[in-house]
Parts: sequence; C-alpha cells; structure tokens
Amino acid sequence: MPAINRQITLASRPAGMPKVSDFHLVESPMPKAGPGEALVYGLYLSVDPYMRARIGGASGYAKPVEPGEVMVGSVAGEVIESHDPRLAPGDFVEGMLGWQEYAVAQAKSLRKINPELAPVSAALSVLGMPGLTAYFGLLDICRPQPGETVLISGAAGAVGSLVGQIARIKRCRAIGIAGSKEKVRFLTRDLGFDAAFNYKDSADYAAKIRELCPNGIDVYFDNVGGAITDAAIARLNVRGRVAVCGQISQYNSDEPEMGPRWLGQLIAKQAKVEGFLVKQFAGRFEEGYRQLAAWLHDGKIQYREDVVTGIENAPRAFIGMLQGQNIGKQLVKLA
Amino acid sequence: MPAINRQITLASRPAGMPKVSDFHLVESPMPKAGPGEALVYGLYLSVDPYMRARIGGASGYAKPVEPGEVMVGSVAGEVIESHDPRLAPGDFVEGMLGWQEYAVAQAKSLRKINPELAPVSAALSVLGMPGLTAYFGLLDICRPQPGETVLISGAAGAVGSLVGQIARIKRCRAIGIAGSKEKVRFLTRDLGFDAAFNYKDSADYAAKIRELCPNGIDVYFDNVGGAITDAAIARLNVRGRVAVCGQISQYNSDEPEMGPRWLGQLIAKQAKVEGFLVKQFAGRFEEGYRQLAAWLHDGKIQYREDVVTGIENAPRAFIGMLQGQNIGKQLVKLA
Repeated sequence: MPAINRQITLASRPAGMPKVSDFHLVESPMPKAGPGEALVYGLYLSVDPYMRARIGGASGYAKPVEPGEVMVGSVAGEVIESHDPRLAPGDFVEGMLGWQEYAVAQAKSLRKINPELAPVSAALSVLGMPGLTAYFGLLDICRPQPGETVLISGAAGAVGSLVGQIARIKRCRAIGIAGSKEKVRFLTRDLGFDAAFNYKDSADYAAKIRELCPNGIDVYFDNVGGAITDAAIARLNVRGRVAVCGQISQYNSDEPEMGPRWLGQLIAKQAKVEGFLVKQFAGRFEEGYRQLAAWLHDGKIQYREDVVTGIENAPRAFIGMLQGQNIGKQLVKLA
Repeated sequence: MPAINRQITLASRPAGMPKVSDFHLVESPMPKAGPGEALVYGLYLSVDPYMRARIGGASGYAKPVEPGEVMVGSVAGEVIESHDPRLAPGDFVEGMLGWQEYAVAQAKSLRKINPELAPVSAALSVLGMPGLTAYFGLLDICRPQPGETVLISGAAGAVGSLVGQIARIKRCRAIGIAGSKEKVRFLTRDLGFDAAFNYKDSADYAAKIRELCPNGIDVYFDNVGGAITDAAIARLNVRGRVAVCGQISQYNSDEPEMGPRWLGQLIAKQAKVEGFLVKQFAGRFEEGYRQLAAWLHDGKIQYREDVVTGIENAPRAFIGMLQGQNIGKQLVKLA
C-alpha cells in the first residue's frame, strides 16, 4: 500500500465546457478507516453527465462540489481493510467514493458486488446507476407497450444504449439518435436497435425522425435536449410519454438557450413530459439489479465500456464524455 | 318560429389575433329535424379559447373549421321539436350546436339540463365543459394534497376560477395570476383565493411568484403559457405537477414564440408536465357533474358569467375573450 493517495479536486467552476485546467491532481495522505468504516482501493471510476451539474454551482441536483473539494463520483473497488462485520478484505464494492485512488467510507454505504455475475466494472454501468436509470426511467416513467415506438436521444451512451435494448425486450420498436456513424452502427448492428441516425449528418432532424418513426413516437427517452427534442416532441403521438433523463446539450450553457415554445403541443396530444432521478426508485433498486443481471446472463442485453487508464486522465475522460466521444459507458481504470 | 336562421361562419383563417372581419353573419333557411333528431332554439352560446385552435388550420385538436363553415361551439338551448323519445319540446339541452340561433342535432348527442340545479347557462360553465376541465385537470392530472400550493394562470377565466376554488376545497393554498386589478379583486375577495397578482402590473413575474408562493409551487395549472409559465416552472417544488390546459398567450402566433429552454429543470425536480383534454375523462363526466353540482348547491363554488347579447356580437365576444377582457365565463345570449 502506498503512503500517498492521489485525488482529483475541482480547481474552479467551469464556464461553458469544462477544461482540464478546471481540475487539479493532488496528493494527500492515505486515509485511515475508523470503526464501522472500510478502506477501499479503487479499480474503476465512473464519469457521468450529472457531474457537470454538480460542479456548476446551482444545480438543484444535490450539494454542489466546491472548488478544492474532491470530485464526486461512483467507484468500483476492492476492500483493503474493514472495521465492520459487513465487509472483509478482498470483497468488491461500489460506492460514491469520489475521484481518488483510495477512499474510506462507512461500510453500510457500500454496495457489495458479486464478481461472478459480471466483471466488477459492470457495477458502474449495466449493473449500476446507468442500468437502474434505464430500467426505471423507461419502464416506470414511460410504461412502453408492445408495438410502440421508443425514440432515444444520446442512444449510444451508458443509459441510452440500455434503454433501447430494454425497449426491444418489451417488444417495442427502438430508434436511436447518436452523434457518429460508428455509434449508429453500434446501435443497429451490435445492440439490435431497429434503426438509428447520426444527428451530425442531418440538419433536418424532423425529416429523419419522420422517416424512422413512420407511426409517430409513443415514448421519447431524452438524454440530450435542444433541437433534437423539439423535433421529437413534434412527432409525439397522442398519449405520448417523455422521460427527461438528461439534457447534455444544455449543460454547458451559462444562460438558458432559447428555443421554440412547444408546451401547447402537449395539450392536443394529451402527452406527458416527466423529469426523474434514479434515486426516486431507491426502494426498488434490488428489483432493478436482479432483472438487469438476469437479462445480462441470458444474453438479452449487451453493454460496452470505453475505458481510459489512470486517475490523472479522469478530467480528460469526463470532458470527452460531455463531448460525446465515448461509445457506451465511459470509465477510468484506476488500478 | 321565424323562417330564417342566423349563423356565424368563418370567413377566412385569421392571421394572428382574429378580427371581426374573419367572420360572417349569414342567414339560412330554418333547419328541419328528421327521425332521431331534435330542433333546438339556442339560449346561450359559449365562446372558448380552444376555438382559436380550431380555426387555425392545423390544430391537432380536431377537424379544423373551414372557411364558409359554421363556427363550432357549445350551446345551451330549449328543444322546440323532437323526433326522438329521449327529448320533448320544452326540455333544456346542451350540445355542440355551433354559432347559430337554431340547430338540429341527433337527440342522443344532446345532454339534458336540469334547470332546477342552476340557470341554464351554467351548463356552459360550472356545470359544463369548463367545470369538468377544472375538476379533472386539477384532481386527476395534478393530484393536489392538503397544504400544497396551487398556482393558476388565467385564473379569472371560466376554468381557472374553478380550479382555484376546487384547490381551496382540497385544503390547498390557491394563488391566481390574472390580467387586471378587477380580476385580482374578484379572485381574492369573491372566490376566496389566498392571493393573486396582476401580471400586467409586474414585469418581474419570478419575484411576484416568490413573494406569493414562499414555499414554492407544488401544482401549476397553466392556461396561459409564455413567460408566466417560465417563471412558474422555475419555482416548482420537487415532485411538482403541471397541468397544461391552455396556452392562450401563444394561440395567435403564426410561428412558435421563442423562450428559454427549461426542460432540464424538470430532472432535479422530478417534476411532471402533462397536457390534457377534458374528453379523455369522458367515461367519468357524470362523476364530475354530480360533484360540481353538489359544491355549487352547498355554496362551496361560485361562478361568474360575462354575457353579451345577440349572435351578431359573438365574434366580438370571442375576440374579447382571447384578449382577456372577460371575467369568468364569456357567454353570448342568443334569445
């Protein structure tokens, strides 16, 4: 065990798209575990869109990260030392341990990972928060019915790629919107989406959506926002449902972007637009994990990871993810 | 019975705010009732915001009214002649009879009015479509809980004025937004709203809403849209619910107005925005009528009518209503 720990702290609140210089790599003494706590050696760190809101100052999500503080984030790692009967050295766990190589946490705040189900890193994607977000966001917020059309923006991301596959399991048509040819290929060839398009190839989103959703859209799972969402809303069917999971196109605007008002369209469509956070389903996480693990085991869902190595590269990975450079779950390999 | 009928037809599709010249007063032969039909003498005609959408060409609401056709609208009147056992001369009925003095309709399409419950005209307001819209829109779409704050835009209109009173019955705080001092007085003094403000007096809607809704907004019942709605959304509480009933500020724009994008705010708030049409509750209209009549009988809800006389004045009344000149339900007295 080294004598020092390496951490990434927030250097300053970013203006617009974060820069590498908005973060600091710092060295600090190894943390010590007290009673009820465990010391965890991080194996993988997750970088996620929600973190942009947490460093923005007034997110409304949760307490913002202050300059000088260690960045928030979920880590999958191995228990090195435990002062709680719940955990033993060698156990694999997942928790909100932050952007650092070693962390101490209350043992009861850590989720034990079964490494026989899937590689440990899956606890940060399909068997973690992105998996639960896709599961509850699609099934509970949108209640898709067999034969319905489900459109997904940000479809090649960690959440979006699972939403489309779960939509297929529920016998819906899954249509993806993503930002590169390679992502579109990934969706339609590897994941079984019925169709997908590259929004960077087509200025006329409305025409593309009309072509790929000839029967309209019953469910729109939105990770992106902006003009893509305007076009999706316009194609929504009567009694359409929209889950607002993310708005990654808007996160780096200091002032709200202007767009056409479309609220009136919801009236005649009798349509619903609902924002959600996965934590509102906290009482049912076990159900979600169990179902996702079963689908994974049965080969009904695939997942893909985009991995960079070294905590010093976490800011770069985070920024790349905000710019849509990843396919599947963006992870940082720590160890 | 006269030999001629007077009707208002659509002369041309309005551009922006409708003008009196967009309508024609025409004379036509008296209609004749065939088997299963009744001839109705109109007493009151209802003019409502939804009609703006129906003359706009591509409303999505329902079949648009074509130039040359009689304007759509609900009428309360008296049966003159009936060829169906369901109705007899002297019965009072309500139905979608259009902007005309006499009309023939299928007897089964007419709703019989009990004139002992309330004046016949109430079948076009509190005991009619506006009452049902307020009842189902507030209770089913928004599910207000005791102690919650309910904000209503267009609060002095036919629907809004009832929404606030039903919110009070459900032990919520009812806050109204309206467009004149007189309307504000009507809401707080006559109808028992907890507070209200005149949006024409205050450019800073956000500050006014903050002042009157110190605990945030749990339910927002929107009849208006635009900048008022932007301010309301910003003040929405976690798990807030928004019913989109109307967007009267937007109906006369040929191109969508631009506004700040706020969809992302729904995420952290885990909030829902839902458009609705009263017809989606058609299976429960009897429940609504019964409850509204009971509240009216018990003095728990008040209603107010704004009446102009003569079918020739229907276009003027309709335009005035779109401009917010009415307090309570805008009606046209035909007979």
